[in-house]
Amino acid sequence: MSSITFFTSVQDQLKFVEQRIREQAGEDHHPDLRSALEHILSAGGKRIRPTLGLLVGNMLGAPEEKLITLGASVELLHTATLVHDDLIDGALLRRGIPTLNARWSPAATVLTGDFLFARAAKLAAETDYLPLMKLFADTLATIVNGELTQMFSARGVIERDNYYQRIYAKTASLFEMASLAACMVATEDEETRAAMKVFGYEVGMAFQIVDDILDVEGASADLGKTAGKDAAAGKPTYPAVYGLDESKRLAADTIARADAGLRDAGLHESHLPAIAQWIVGRRS
Amino acid sequence: MSSITFFTSVQDQLKFVEQRIREQAGEDHHPDLRSALEHILSAGGKRIRPTLGLLVGNMLGAPEEKLITLGASVELLHTATLVHDDLIDGALLRRGIPTLNARWSPAATVLTGDFLFARAAKLAAETDYLPLMKLFADTLATIVNGELTQMFSARGVIERDNYYQRIYAKTASLFEMASLAACMVATEDEETRAAMKVFGYEVGMAFQIVDDILDVEGASADLGKTAGKDAAAGKPTYPAVYGLDESKRLAADTIARADAGLRDAGLHESHLPAIAQWIVGRRS
Repeated sequence: MSSITFFTSVQDQLKFVEQRIREQAGEDHHPDLRSALEHILSAGGKRIRPTLGLLVGNMLGAPEEKLITLGASVELLHTATLVHDDLIDGALLRRGIPTLNARWSPAATVLTGDFLFARAAKLAAETDYLPLMKLFADTLATIVNGELTQMFSARGVIERDNYYQRIYAKTASLFEMASLAACMVATEDEETRAAMKVFGYEVGMAFQIVDDILDVEGASADLGKTAGKDAAAGKPTYPAVYGLDESKRLAADTIARADAGLRDAGLHESHLPAIAQWIVGRRS
Repeated sequence: MSSITFFTSVQDQLKFVEQRIREQAGEDHHPDLRSALEHILSAGGKRIRPTLGLLVGNMLGAPEEKLITLGASVELLHTATLVHDDLIDGALLRRGIPTLNARWSPAATVLTGDFLFARAAKLAAETDYLPLMKLFADTLATIVNGELTQMFSARGVIERDNYYQRIYAKTASLFEMASLAACMVATEDEETRAAMKVFGYEVGMAFQIVDDILDVEGASADLGKTAGKDAAAGKPTYPAVYGLDESKRLAADTIARADAGLRDAGLHESHLPAIAQWIVGRRS
């Protein structure tokens, strides 16, 4: 099977992930909540995190049904944190007073995010595998702790370690979860699990560094968001502080480290290097 | 064992629950998050929900360690929803602009609530019993769906069913979870589980009706919160609409129904009627 067909097969599975996600805006909810969820969930995004899980899980022969459930769970967890993030970013920009609009009050936004957490947790439980629930809860704690740390920290100056910690919490933790979780439903082999955890981590780190570089370089149309937004919001990004050349070296180093890790784990002949390149190329 | 010693033995177990709760403000977090968590968790409350779980679980011979973990989980879930509720209620009182103070911005409040969700989920996973994870996720969805429904609904006029649904989502769902979860780690007998689920439900409903009555009657000091607060916030409570006498009849009916249910399940000779009376008498 070539890399091309390898990626193509995932497209069909992603449709089932999409269906599982949409089912969460179920009929037994208040019509306004339903339309809110439909609004948020149809906004889409490239479903990068479920894609990573599917690619890794397919390679390792994981059961498709569990990969689909996991993909929906990781994407809803991601969406829930985005919903709260958007509220928070609005609040920071306007000196603590969140954006209000006719449709979404801050209160409804908080609760809609909470509802998405509940649905993500439910889907994680539906994988019927307890270690995945712990991974789910730990990942959520990592993300939130990272956001709080960023909020409480002095702004402007960052150290390299600080940057790593921040983008781990913000991005790579969910990539790590997606890759590790897909591996966990495929095999109990601890060595493979450790390798796929590191793989998800490195891919996620590279993804975020590239995203930060693009935020500075300003490919607005391609990114689907405003270039320079992070810098404007006062978020210290590595490229903003250390420049683009140093940042590109950092991204290349991270991808090289992912490659080296795969070689050590005897997985370099797999599709993983192609997966890494493809995922990083899709930063959304 | 008399009812007196029955309740006394729970006091020691509650200390362990308290310890598990406090452990969640762990050392690996940002100092500001730690102090925030300590602030919230030390504010206390009567730990009614863990108490209910311990009383039910002890009666059924559930493993103590699991009851303690469950008690900490249910209390943290309750606390997380309170943290977000307080933000939302503040927003409602001030026409959509949340209370800001030197220590707690709305952003930090949202994230601290999220962190508590993560910790509650982690503790639920530590019971090593998947059906409990699903119960946890479903309960969170019920609570949030109820709050959203209340927010989106027209205010002022309520029907009896509407009131039941609202206080189920707000209060009784967590009592139901506490009672059922404690039963689930004790026995797989479906009849007992069904009975203890209904028991938790009825106790929770009675607890909230009594709380609403007291909100109107205004025993401020005893309640530890401002009397008439719900009515002032524009929340339609049953006593406010149908009067105190009708509400007291409702509370008595609910407790009578809990009693009848216990009789049907052959559990009326147990400590449960005393538990119900005691819990409802402690409304916090």
